[in-house]
Amino acid sequence: MTDKKVIRQRLRMLRTAMREAGIDYYLIPTADYHNSEYVNDYFKAREFLSGFTGSNGTLVVSQEEAGLWTDGRYFVQAQKELEDTGIRLFRMQEEGVPDIAAYLQKYMWEGQSLGFDGRTVTARFGRRLEDVLSEKKVRIVFDRDLVDTIWQDRPRFPCSRAETVPAEYCGMSVTQKLAAVRNRMKEEKASALFISKLDELMWLFNLRGNDVAYNPVLMSYGFLTEKEAYIFLQAGSLQRETLASMKEAGVMIRDYCSIIPFLRDYFSPGPARRGILYYDDRNISYTMYRIFWAYGNCREGSSPVEQLKAVRTDTELSFIRKIYLKDSIAVTKFIYWIKQKAGEEPLTEYDAARYLDSLRRGIPEFLDVSFPTISAYQENAAMMHYEAEEKTAAPLKAEGMLLADSGGQYLGGTTDVTRTIVLGEISQEMKERFTAVATGMLRLAGARFLHGCTGRNLDILARGPLWDLGMDYKCGTGHGVGYMLNVHEGPQSIRWRYEKNVPEAVLEAGMIVTDEPGVYLENRYGIRTENVLEVKEAFQTDDGLFMEFGHLTWVPVDLDGILPEQMPEREREALNRYHKGVFEKISPYLTEEEQAWLETATREV
Amino acid sequence: MTDKKVIRQRLRMLRTAMREAGIDYYLIPTADYHNSEYVNDYFKAREFLSGFTGSNGTLVVSQEEAGLWTDGRYFVQAQKELEDTGIRLFRMQEEGVPDIAAYLQKYMWEGQSLGFDGRTVTARFGRRLEDVLSEKKVRIVFDRDLVDTIWQDRPRFPCSRAETVPAEYCGMSVTQKLAAVRNRMKEEKASALFISKLDELMWLFNLRGNDVAYNPVLMSYGFLTEKEAYIFLQAGSLQRETLASMKEAGVMIRDYCSIIPFLRDYFSPGPARRGILYYDDRNISYTMYRIFWAYGNCREGSSPVEQLKAVRTDTELSFIRKIYLKDSIAVTKFIYWIKQKAGEEPLTEYDAARYLDSLRRGIPEFLDVSFPTISAYQENAAMMHYEAEEKTAAPLKAEGMLLADSGGQYLGGTTDVTRTIVLGEISQEMKERFTAVATGMLRLAGARFLHGCTGRNLDILARGPLWDLGMDYKCGTGHGVGYMLNVHEGPQSIRWRYEKNVPEAVLEAGMIVTDEPGVYLENRYGIRTENVLEVKEAFQTDDGLFMEFGHLTWVPVDLDGILPEQMPEREREALNRYHKGVFEKISPYLTEEEQAWLETATREV
Repeated sequence: MTDKKVIRQRLRMLRTAMREAGIDYYLIPTADYHNSEYVNDYFKAREFLSGFTGSNGTLVVSQEEAGLWTDGRYFVQAQKELEDTGIRLFRMQEEGVPDIAAYLQKYMWEGQSLGFDGRTVTARFGRRLEDVLSEKKVRIVFDRDLVDTIWQDRPRFPCSRAETVPAEYCGMSVTQKLAAVRNRMKEEKASALFISKLDELMWLFNLRGNDVAYNPVLMSYGFLTEKEAYIFLQAGSLQRETLASMKEAGVMIRDYCSIIPFLRDYFSPGPARRGILYYDDRNISYTMYRIFWAYGNCREGSSPVEQLKAVRTDTELSFIRKIYLKDSIAVTKFIYWIKQKAGEEPLTEYDAARYLDSLRRGIPEFLDVSFPTISAYQENAAMMHYEAEEKTAAPLKAEGMLLADSGGQYLGGTTDVTRTIVLGEISQEMKERFTAVATGMLRLAGARFLHGCTGRNLDILARGPLWDLGMDYKCGTGHGVGYMLNVHEGPQSIRWRYEKNVPEAVLEAGMIVTDEPGVYLENRYGIRTENVLEVKEAFQTDDGLFMEFGHLTWVPVDLDGILPEQMPEREREALNRYHKGVFEKISPYLTEEEQAWLETATREV
Repeated sequence: MTDKKVIRQRLRMLRTAMREAGIDYYLIPTADYHNSEYVNDYFKAREFLSGFTGSNGTLVVSQEEAGLWTDGRYFVQAQKELEDTGIRLFRMQEEGVPDIAAYLQKYMWEGQSLGFDGRTVTARFGRRLEDVLSEKKVRIVFDRDLVDTIWQDRPRFPCSRAETVPAEYCGMSVTQKLAAVRNRMKEEKASALFISKLDELMWLFNLRGNDVAYNPVLMSYGFLTEKEAYIFLQAGSLQRETLASMKEAGVMIRDYCSIIPFLRDYFSPGPARRGILYYDDRNISYTMYRIFWAYGNCREGSSPVEQLKAVRTDTELSFIRKIYLKDSIAVTKFIYWIKQKAGEEPLTEYDAARYLDSLRRGIPEFLDVSFPTISAYQENAAMMHYEAEEKTAAPLKAEGMLLADSGGQYLGGTTDVTRTIVLGEISQEMKERFTAVATGMLRLAGARFLHGCTGRNLDILARGPLWDLGMDYKCGTGHGVGYMLNVHEGPQSIRWRYEKNVPEAVLEAGMIVTDEPGVYLENRYGIRTENVLEVKEAFQTDDGLFMEFGHLTWVPVDLDGILPEQMPEREREALNRYHKGVFEKISPYLTEEEQAWLETATREV
């Protein structure tokens, strides 16, 4: 933990810088310039200034007060880390706690100024602040990074090597992808398209990198017109093969830092000559939004790249199926191992996670884990995103349940799988809920549905068995999964809640979604069973094109948690069929002891 | 059928009137001034001019051509009725057939004029025509009803007696309702609200009438401000008690025909002084839209009345439950009767419908049927809205299935119920599908779901068993049902298809929806089982407020169509529980023979 004195001094320095810049309130979110899911050390300005190390938090500083907003996962930790810093903790979503916009609206005076680095604030949040503060005529200063002047030993801006995706792994060439995106642009009557979401850029240009933890991406921007395609990369990232592959596809490379002057220059002939600029307003920064807003002729909408990227080609699918099989072997071996060892040897959640990671690392195509492995025992599993730390990890006993949620980045795919493993005696109530979770997972996976359905039509299949018990999980049932890319991607998702004006994505053949219902009981236990599914065409009848899912994950669901008599016949049969598939696919790669165990673990119930 | 010569002459007269008015294309839809579901004879101008008697059709006439657009239900009939009239049939939704807007866009010349009676065209359709024709600088003339000048013996404008809903049947007083609507207006910052949907007006002012077939409504408009409330009624409708009840609620009555001058007068001080006018753009006419558009300070959105109207009070619910029981007795008696008589006595679909109507008429609270009774035998049941006619009705035999979909308007509620009745031998395939339909109906009715769900979350429960068979029905699963009002009402519905920007209504306790999956096989047979459900709160847990449905309909599902072994256990148990309820509730009101039959008809399977 950073010394509290140091934090107080840093805040003093920021306040001095604010006075010099004429800024009354300064806001520091936790984000990079691309609204990435993880931020690199370079972007941890909020942590630098507040000492709070959680993954989600926004700091707001005025001369009189400093406040930090974070969510329920971090209340205890933040309380401790903020002690004696003079920073007040705002517990997000708690009753009576204002959100940042409401706080600023209440406390800022007429004519004051609010500052932030507009590159780290999303266009949507920036616009909301504009809306809320316009009545008070608050001036928004978004072009200064005040922290940079204070932060002497700031880590380097991330700049990993650009890697070209080997041709055989590419579902489509860059040329084909550009043509497809341009078709969509034409439909939107767009003359130009601006892209700032990193996984979209990696997909479009068949590149990968390592600039964001767990996400194999490069800091970059993209700009497309009818005729031209530009990618903005850091000079330090460039390899000779990148230059060659971009040249081959007719893509022009520009320096990452030149994006703003480039755009200003491009726009200078005016909207009448340049036509409509299209962008996805969920992902661009407030700084970019202001540039576009000044240009004036823009259309906002879902990214055409996101939609195209989400549909896997046959080439990609064949790699993905192979990699999911290898990944499933590793997880199955892990389950065997942990069920043998728990209670026999001194092991913690942390040890279990490392062992699982090591099994993945043994796969030749392995590149990295796709997110921090979750290995959560008993009550820790009630926290959806728990990450065991070496020193504080819970020791595993021959009782209760261990929830393991993990995945890998491989040459050939990105995986994500969760199993809740019964380590010994569990209660009847736990078994009932374990059974309901498995039933929900299987019911969704076994759905047959007309083309045109979105995740909102199907969510109740996974959630229904829990709703029948009066229980719910406070998250979606499923998300898209990237191909050698981010483990979370859109536009498809399986969720139920209606949100006005939020577009829904139709489930198309070739899309991939997770199916992960769960039970989370604070301070008690957590259960989640997650398979990854591919969307497929089932058959066509007079009544339309019917779709179905196929399993990509082949890992046994722990029968020690299942009450077969409580499963509806259809899902019990589906479980037996699934387990038959697991045994057939996985057993050839196991040792004899593992095989013998798997036979029992996948027995018919 | 009107003589074809007469039709040709009418078209000539219209064309003369068009030339005199300087109108190049004239459009005649099938609608009244309020976008009602049924139109009275006064509004059947399209039928008068074309001779086509179907319930859906739009006629477009130019000097060179005349075209009639109608949907698949009427292709055969329209073909016949339009023969020798010179009117060309446009089969809506068929490939290669332009819709009206596309047709006009293609054939109208620059600077020509399109005419229609703007009161009979919805704002949405009018705006679409504006959009499409603006490039060609087409002038839209919407203030003339050219048919009126030609139509010598036009039927009278509907003008029934206004009836005040007896106080004991009113869920809320007019004063309470006005206060609730004004609260919603405040939320929308609206200074005034315009209402033109007739069932909304009837609900708000606790009035009923008989101006539209099957819909107990009066031709009327409503206009509310913060302080004032106006209802526009025809002088001929007014009764002394209407005057008294409106006066008591502080509602001012104005003449129906004075709405337009009233609005012009109200708006004349200008938008700055009058503030925001709110209206529901799905229901207003193009004429009204143009007046509001000229005013300039409007907000469009879902009607606040629609939302309030959809939630039944406890008083209303207790009447509804009683009336559904009486209605269910009539339908149960009908099923017994038809199952005895079919094949024994010469009976047609038409006779069956009349007998069913007569049983309802025997209920003391009966006022009218709520829509034309559907009595459809064998292949006729494949047509969703089939209406048997005395001369052409199919004779019933002791084989196959009769689909009976019917409902009543009662003092105390509006009903809607469908049963498919097995009259003799049916095939195994028919039974499989009959079973799937019943399974779907019961699965939806047995749902438990978190508050916040809309019909799109639940539709798959009813439709899933059919999707599993590769079948679908081309309509929603359910609609709202009025209270002594229209049998179809919103905003709630059970449907699956995603439509961008179409708002969804959360299912609230006290709402009523139908649950009516079906199978429709052209030229073969049709199956539909429809219960009406009320939405109820089930229980509250840490995870939220859970909702469930309760049956309002208590009519046996014909076990002669059911394959119990093909029903999942949960739905088979639900069927048995439901049938137990049917027997308990209905049998006390039956004859001994009927009772004996019902015992078998509701036996456990």
